[in-house]
Amino acid sequence: MSGQWLQKPAWSWNPTGGETDFVHQWVKPLDETEAPDLIIYGAPISRSSISVSGASMYPEEFRRVWKSFATYNLDEDLDLSPYRVSDAGDVMMHTTDIIGSHSRIQESAKHLAKTYPGAVTCMIGGDHSTTACAVRGIKEAFPDETIGLLQLDTHLDVRDPSELGPANGTPIRQLIDGQTVQGDHIVNIGLHGYYNAKPLIDYAKQHNIQMVSLGKARKNGIIQTLQESLAYLAERTDRVYVTVDMDVLDISAAPGVPASTPGGMSTDELFALLLEAGRHEKAAHIDFVCLDPTKDSPVAQTVKAGVYAWMQFVTGCVMKEPVFI
Amino acid sequence: MSGQWLQKPAWSWNPTGGETDFVHQWVKPLDETEAPDLIIYGAPISRSSISVSGASMYPEEFRRVWKSFATYNLDEDLDLSPYRVSDAGDVMMHTTDIIGSHSRIQESAKHLAKTYPGAVTCMIGGDHSTTACAVRGIKEAFPDETIGLLQLDTHLDVRDPSELGPANGTPIRQLIDGQTVQGDHIVNIGLHGYYNAKPLIDYAKQHNIQMVSLGKARKNGIIQTLQESLAYLAERTDRVYVTVDMDVLDISAAPGVPASTPGGMSTDELFALLLEAGRHEKAAHIDFVCLDPTKDSPVAQTVKAGVYAWMQFVTGCVMKEPVFI
Amino acid sequence: MSGQWLQKPAWSWNPTGGETDFVHQWVKPLDETEAPDLIIYGAPISRSSISVSGASMYPEEFRRVWKSFATYNLDEDLDLSPYRVSDAGDVMMHTTDIIGSHSRIQESAKHLAKTYPGAVTCMIGGDHSTTACAVRGIKEAFPDETIGLLQLDTHLDVRDPSELGPANGTPIRQLIDGQTVQGDHIVNIGLHGYYNAKPLIDYAKQHNIQMVSLGKARKNGIIQTLQESLAYLAERTDRVYVTVDMDVLDISAAPGVPASTPGGMSTDELFALLLEAGRHEKAAHIDFVCLDPTKDSPVAQTVKAGVYAWMQFVTGCVMKEPVFI
Amino acid sequence: MSGQWLQKPAWSWNPTGGETDFVHQWVKPLDETEAPDLIIYGAPISRSSISVSGASMYPEEFRRVWKSFATYNLDEDLDLSPYRVSDAGDVMMHTTDIIGSHSRIQESAKHLAKTYPGAVTCMIGGDHSTTACAVRGIKEAFPDETIGLLQLDTHLDVRDPSELGPANGTPIRQLIDGQTVQGDHIVNIGLHGYYNAKPLIDYAKQHNIQMVSLGKARKNGIIQTLQESLAYLAERTDRVYVTVDMDVLDISAAPGVPASTPGGMSTDELFALLLEAGRHEKAAHIDFVCLDPTKDSPVAQTVKAGVYAWMQFVTGCVMKEPVFI
Amino acid sequence: MSGQWLQKPAWSWNPTGGETDFVHQWVKPLDETEAPDLIIYGAPISRSSISVSGASMYPEEFRRVWKSFATYNLDEDLDLSPYRVSDAGDVMMHTTDIIGSHSRIQESAKHLAKTYPGAVTCMIGGDHSTTACAVRGIKEAFPDETIGLLQLDTHLDVRDPSELGPANGTPIRQLIDGQTVQGDHIVNIGLHGYYNAKPLIDYAKQHNIQMVSLGKARKNGIIQTLQESLAYLAERTDRVYVTVDMDVLDISAAPGVPASTPGGMSTDELFALLLEAGRHEKAAHIDFVCLDPTKDSPVAQTVKAGVYAWMQFVTGCVMKEPVFI
Amino acid sequence: MSGQWLQKPAWSWNPTGGETDFVHQWVKPLDETEAPDLIIYGAPISRSSISVSGASMYPEEFRRVWKSFATYNLDEDLDLSPYRVSDAGDVMMHTTDIIGSHSRIQESAKHLAKTYPGAVTCMIGGDHSTTACAVRGIKEAFPDETIGLLQLDTHLDVRDPSELGPANGTPIRQLIDGQTVQGDHIVNIGLHGYYNAKPLIDYAKQHNIQMVSLGKARKNGIIQTLQESLAYLAERTDRVYVTVDMDVLDISAAPGVPASTPGGMSTDELFALLLEAGRHEKAAHIDFVCLDPTKDSPVAQTVKAGVYAWMQFVTGCVMKEPVFI
Repeated sequence: MSGQWLQKPAWSWNPTGGETDFVHQWVKPLDETEAPDLIIYGAPISRSSISVSGASMYPEEFRRVWKSFATYNLDEDLDLSPYRVSDAGDVMMHTTDIIGSHSRIQESAKHLAKTYPGAVTCMIGGDHSTTACAVRGIKEAFPDETIGLLQLDTHLDVRDPSELGPANGTPIRQLIDGQTVQGDHIVNIGLHGYYNAKPLIDYAKQHNIQMVSLGKARKNGIIQTLQESLAYLAERTDRVYVTVDMDVLDISAAPGVPASTPGGMSTDELFALLLEAGRHEKAAHIDFVCLDPTKDSPVAQTVKAGVYAWMQFVTGCVMKEPVFI
Repeated sequence: MSGQWLQKPAWSWNPTGGETDFVHQWVKPLDETEAPDLIIYGAPISRSSISVSGASMYPEEFRRVWKSFATYNLDEDLDLSPYRVSDAGDVMMHTTDIIGSHSRIQESAKHLAKTYPGAVTCMIGGDHSTTACAVRGIKEAFPDETIGLLQLDTHLDVRDPSELGPANGTPIRQLIDGQTVQGDHIVNIGLHGYYNAKPLIDYAKQHNIQMVSLGKARKNGIIQTLQESLAYLAERTDRVYVTVDMDVLDISAAPGVPASTPGGMSTDELFALLLEAGRHEKAAHIDFVCLDPTKDSPVAQTVKAGVYAWMQFVTGCVMKEPVFI
Repeated sequence: MSGQWLQKPAWSWNPTGGETDFVHQWVKPLDETEAPDLIIYGAPISRSSISVSGASMYPEEFRRVWKSFATYNLDEDLDLSPYRVSDAGDVMMHTTDIIGSHSRIQESAKHLAKTYPGAVTCMIGGDHSTTACAVRGIKEAFPDETIGLLQLDTHLDVRDPSELGPANGTPIRQLIDGQTVQGDHIVNIGLHGYYNAKPLIDYAKQHNIQMVSLGKARKNGIIQTLQESLAYLAERTDRVYVTVDMDVLDISAAPGVPASTPGGMSTDELFALLLEAGRHEKAAHIDFVCLDPTKDSPVAQTVKAGVYAWMQFVTGCVMKEPVFI
Repeated sequence: MSGQWLQKPAWSWNPTGGETDFVHQWVKPLDETEAPDLIIYGAPISRSSISVSGASMYPEEFRRVWKSFATYNLDEDLDLSPYRVSDAGDVMMHTTDIIGSHSRIQESAKHLAKTYPGAVTCMIGGDHSTTACAVRGIKEAFPDETIGLLQLDTHLDVRDPSELGPANGTPIRQLIDGQTVQGDHIVNIGLHGYYNAKPLIDYAKQHNIQMVSLGKARKNGIIQTLQESLAYLAERTDRVYVTVDMDVLDISAAPGVPASTPGGMSTDELFALLLEAGRHEKAAHIDFVCLDPTKDSPVAQTVKAGVYAWMQFVTGCVMKEPVFI
Repeated sequence: MSGQWLQKPAWSWNPTGGETDFVHQWVKPLDETEAPDLIIYGAPISRSSISVSGASMYPEEFRRVWKSFATYNLDEDLDLSPYRVSDAGDVMMHTTDIIGSHSRIQESAKHLAKTYPGAVTCMIGGDHSTTACAVRGIKEAFPDETIGLLQLDTHLDVRDPSELGPANGTPIRQLIDGQTVQGDHIVNIGLHGYYNAKPLIDYAKQHNIQMVSLGKARKNGIIQTLQESLAYLAERTDRVYVTVDMDVLDISAAPGVPASTPGGMSTDELFALLLEAGRHEKAAHIDFVCLDPTKDSPVAQTVKAGVYAWMQFVTGCVMKEPVFI
Repeated sequence: MSGQWLQKPAWSWNPTGGETDFVHQWVKPLDETEAPDLIIYGAPISRSSISVSGASMYPEEFRRVWKSFATYNLDEDLDLSPYRVSDAGDVMMHTTDIIGSHSRIQESAKHLAKTYPGAVTCMIGGDHSTTACAVRGIKEAFPDETIGLLQLDTHLDVRDPSELGPANGTPIRQLIDGQTVQGDHIVNIGLHGYYNAKPLIDYAKQHNIQMVSLGKARKNGIIQTLQESLAYLAERTDRVYVTVDMDVLDISAAPGVPASTPGGMSTDELFALLLEAGRHEKAAHIDFVCLDPTKDSPVAQTVKAGVYAWMQFVTGCVMKEPVFI
């Protein structure tokens, strides 16, 4: 059974009756939900990270912090609670077998995409190596479809897997070289500064990855840029996978993402982008990676931003609904 | 004597002659000042807070940090030193009698408002429960006047006092239910995100609290929004009380406010709003609450922002002066 | 020999062959470079600081953190590696002789300016007292030229050296009173708030220092302001020295600069200004001062911003090159 | 029903089958246990603390950290798992009604003592004000018995409740003045240094509190002192209540106890004392108070010491069992 | 070539002439030393750790901090500088191939032991999984010899590799089950408290691991215990490998070892043990593992203790020398 | 007037009537005291420190933290309040003139010693460079007397002033080379480990400094060692100056002393030594140096230990009194 690696989430044993005012009351364990609109699952691995990372702790912290989030979006005056969100739990990781752990993620992503084709799936990483697994799994679920990748990231993540193995610097290159995703089916928004060495940029150009620096995105309008990017992908591919490397955020907003940098995106910008992304018909999958809660500020600044970011995407999904009616 | 609970501020025993270049030289103890233009006093209580809070330490830290602030506003090229600011000290709090401590705040606020009707009064909290006390005290001082409330806050603070007692989540509801302030005489600017559960929003709508989300305020222009809000209140009420819950600030700007959130107001926005608020004729009272200096960054980032915020309001007051001539 | 106080930089003993993808591979020790385009050197002193400061550790940290910076500017799609950057090492400081240490900085600045007249020189402080030394040294190298000062700073730094000695609050006054630079040949961008006492502002006005508050700069456009400021200086002086007191940054962006304040410049603004400054023909010298890495955040937020800032200036220098052709 | 204020512990909803290797597997919810040997319950209040305290968070952290403790005492080569330990959950606290919260603790302590007279009861505070509540409750459960108090504390905690209310500096005086416990039925081990003002020492002498300074205890032998102290109390009273103010520990061992001091007890000493105390026939009740996990070291040094301390007492209880056979 | 995975240590490029007053001046790169008395090498891996660990950073930090250590042992009035210590650098680790990385450690340990049979070898971990690799490598170098293990550790580290893979909780069991070392050729000193679950203790008893709890060691005398333990091993085996899991230290002494506990060994005790161990003729190999410098205190308390511990062992080695004459 | 550099202490403006229960109530400003038994004064300089140090902040923190210390020594059951302690304030330091600042300390030490010959004087540093100043000043006050030095220190502090100037590594050598104190009139207790390079030990031996390593002191008995050391000095000199470099403490006890090390003295040992030292007839002067409160733990562990240490010395002085009757 391909869902075998998904462990029922711990929190779900503690349902609090019929209330849905807060996120932990609203989200249900997957097996208690019929026809979920959106499924989350965790991929708690970061021993595949080039530098020491506690991103494996993020799924647990994500679920701890969401207790302080209400299910009402005040900005849009929108009650999210009718939307059905399910938690499939975390993919069980092996202590020392990285390749095996990656396979389990791939298998689980495939299982969820295949079993719940009508649901949006959200993976909570883990480091960025998990994205390659999830996209491959989804590709296996829908072998006849092409996948577009919307990447919000400070880095290209196209380092060479033949040198590093399937580490967190390589996922995009794994997908291109493995012919899961075409280079020109990838749009990266958020690149800036001095964080990508020339050989990587050369690779990106050669494979026609669409690089939109943060500066360009701002000049063009953040929302406008996103809409154009999704239109570009929607034209060329069947479904869009959004991958949010939280290091796209400015370092002042994301102390808990070791690779975040000065000159990065503000939380306001990220939140606006994600609401917009959620609204897009083809944005069927998303992940949030590389947030290391062990390095977060004492007030959990980054994890709070991470939950908020996810809520924005969910709000977008909710706002998209009526479109289908 | 209703001013009995005000303890002379410790720092005032240490006057430094005639200099007024820095705030601690400029502010005088209340009893050494004739006809002050503005009075500050502290309400150092936070054991009324729902979660553990050291906001009771804020008045002391506020006065420690103001030593590094000059009395010259460089942006406006304006010397504030001729303006007469007095410090009435802190309201003495009881160690375990929360209701009694609240009464003392109420009594002190009444005393100051009544004794110095020409002065602007500024309360330095303490948690947000103190606002209900201060507003009630001012209402007692001016029983025939209606009070408008300009609230800068991420939250509505209308939780149910019958459940929590007079805790820091309830002050606005205390004032509405106690008929001290009408719901439609309250404007809250700064609400955003997922931080108010639906039942609270329902209460706010039912009582016609004017909710201006941060997003709307930005679209409309921050300053423009404030001017319209004050005009709205000025039309309907006799005096305006400004309450600044420092959690309105973005979490990157306010690590020392445990309830601050991503997606909040920038310090630049808050500073602009407060200067504008200070300029308004009817803005006669202000408080700053919920800043917990024990959780601040090592460089006192939040307390510095708190003093700056207060200075902006004072600058506004100074700039208003000529209007009366 | 006037270059005698410059210690060969420790890192330079460890060249990594012909690669130039990262900064530490690209920068060469001065004596191994012919005709450098740009020279950096460190002035590791901060015992001249009024309050306790570890800014003396900045040169070492600067060189440690630059290893994570690539030599490709993604925003401008520009490969910086052909530009020849040399490291002259650090000026050797005496443990207790502050005046002597200052002389060594002055001598070294003179030596580099005189020996490499075609190169831009960048000093990495140290506290702001080092600026007075460097400018005096450059003046000695070019006694017939007038020097303009572009100061990015929250403070005027015109406190009285007759009271404090050559401390970090006094460099600008040292230069004016010592007739090294005329007051009206100084433009300070970034002043704001309540951080300069009235007597200092009076001094600045009296000596006709051009004060451009951050608020004014923003209204006028940050880049526009910089261009006008440089044009103003270029008209009146022969060469422009840019001094960047990192406390010009907002406190949320610069926890490692003890004197940074709320209401300060964003990193984006600083980065834009420095790229523009680097492009200006007369901007021949720059320093970065007052960054105390011992107080930085655990993820080295401020040092990263400091290296980024320097890279922006270098990018500007590179972009200026064709102009000369 | 007098047990009404006890909330079922959250963790107990998540039993892990029959395993008992670790503490969270071994301890059972009270209502699922027949005839427990030992009962723990939490008293999560610290708004009664003189200074800001997060000791109210201790019961939750205590139960979180015990997951890393095995039920095998390696030093004694003793398997604790056959001993039946139950968790009665936490006493529900009111947000602002301190007196009411104290009554609930008293009522709950009475309830447990009365309902399970054969079980040892362990209260996890909260601040030291909770001790007065628990002792009064136990006195009500056994009105005909005299209670002896073994206090491990750096302080006497005999400040005047008529001044502070039932705050954390007053519990011992509350019990003496309220005639719940006689002064000469109290032995305090661990006093030292300069942490008790003369009037408090005068009060203690006047009421014949047995003060054993840490220095004297060490000279006499720590274990020997404890045995003599318990013998002293056992001769004069019917049951012994042990109260462990964690501030008895040296500040290097207890960063998470704000009132801990240099010159305090080592963890080894405390652990030895508690094992010995647990072995005493009359030691029927214990509490652990004043540990503030919000101030603990990043590796939870103090909470770990707190759980260890409790385990030592439990080991003592287990070792006592055969005595009764 | 079996030494191929050893990277020349970075620091060694920067020799400082003939001075040997400080450790970094005294230790030489292996290839520049003839007939070293002692060789250190690093095994920078911790992605094999059960919980997130930065112990992979320890070799680098170890070599950074040793600069502040003099080569003169003041307690013994002994100049260590004539003793020839060489640094073989770090074993190169693969980013994602844990098994492969482990093989490289094994191979390197074998290479050094075989090539320099007269030298003591010291491995700086890395997590405790590295011990299994090193011991296997040494066994391969001396296939006809039996190896005794002196383990200083709070834990038995005999968890099941069939479940966890070769993770840091399993090395001792790997060695026993793999018949590299016999269970009764292992003495563990330092066990205490509640940190080993019953099944692990059962395994240890079954395999006759000699468990000496810290309490027993203290009663018997720390030094006396060590001497007896080494005598026990020397009688039964050909060479002794000492493995120091730094979590044997008390948590107050070792904040940078996540698994350290209250009730652990003091640094004074560890230092005394290691000097004694170094003096023993058969103690030919040692490692220091599980110290995570990313979690250390701001003043590097734990890394300093780690270097000191190593120096004590070296002192012991030096003091042993004359024995051979 | 040679007392001109002593600034009246800030706290003294805030006397709290006749109470003496706590230290800040008990200590009086010097000029309000007749015939003090003991005088404290601060020497707030640390820019003379080799590495960055905030020890200049210690006098202020010392006086802030003493508010939490009672004037009753519980261990000795001794009321200290009749003893007359005066505070002479801090020596005014120049911002950049280190030599000048040192002269002011010397002059002030001379002034106090000469004016109050019957009083014990206590200097609160500052870094260790201040000791050389103070001892020279006392020598000037009593030119015909020889001074013995009891040094509690991990280091010899005999680095060469001709190289470093009068920095904090040099005071003992300054005094020997300057013939203020003879080498054989110096006893250093507390040396240990690897913290003194061979050339320094050679210097010490050559000048016959009495080095008592911590290990030797423990073997001989800490108190016994101190008594013998003082007897040794008392035989040979007229008055004894005790200098306590707080780095003598173990690093676990003194996180706020950057040079503290593993293997150092425990607070209990230091406290016992200082009580004993205070009792000695000839111990007329003491200083406490090198404690940097900016690096202290969040709960001020080290400053608390510093105040406690001073109180122990004072207790010793009080206990000595009757001897003279």
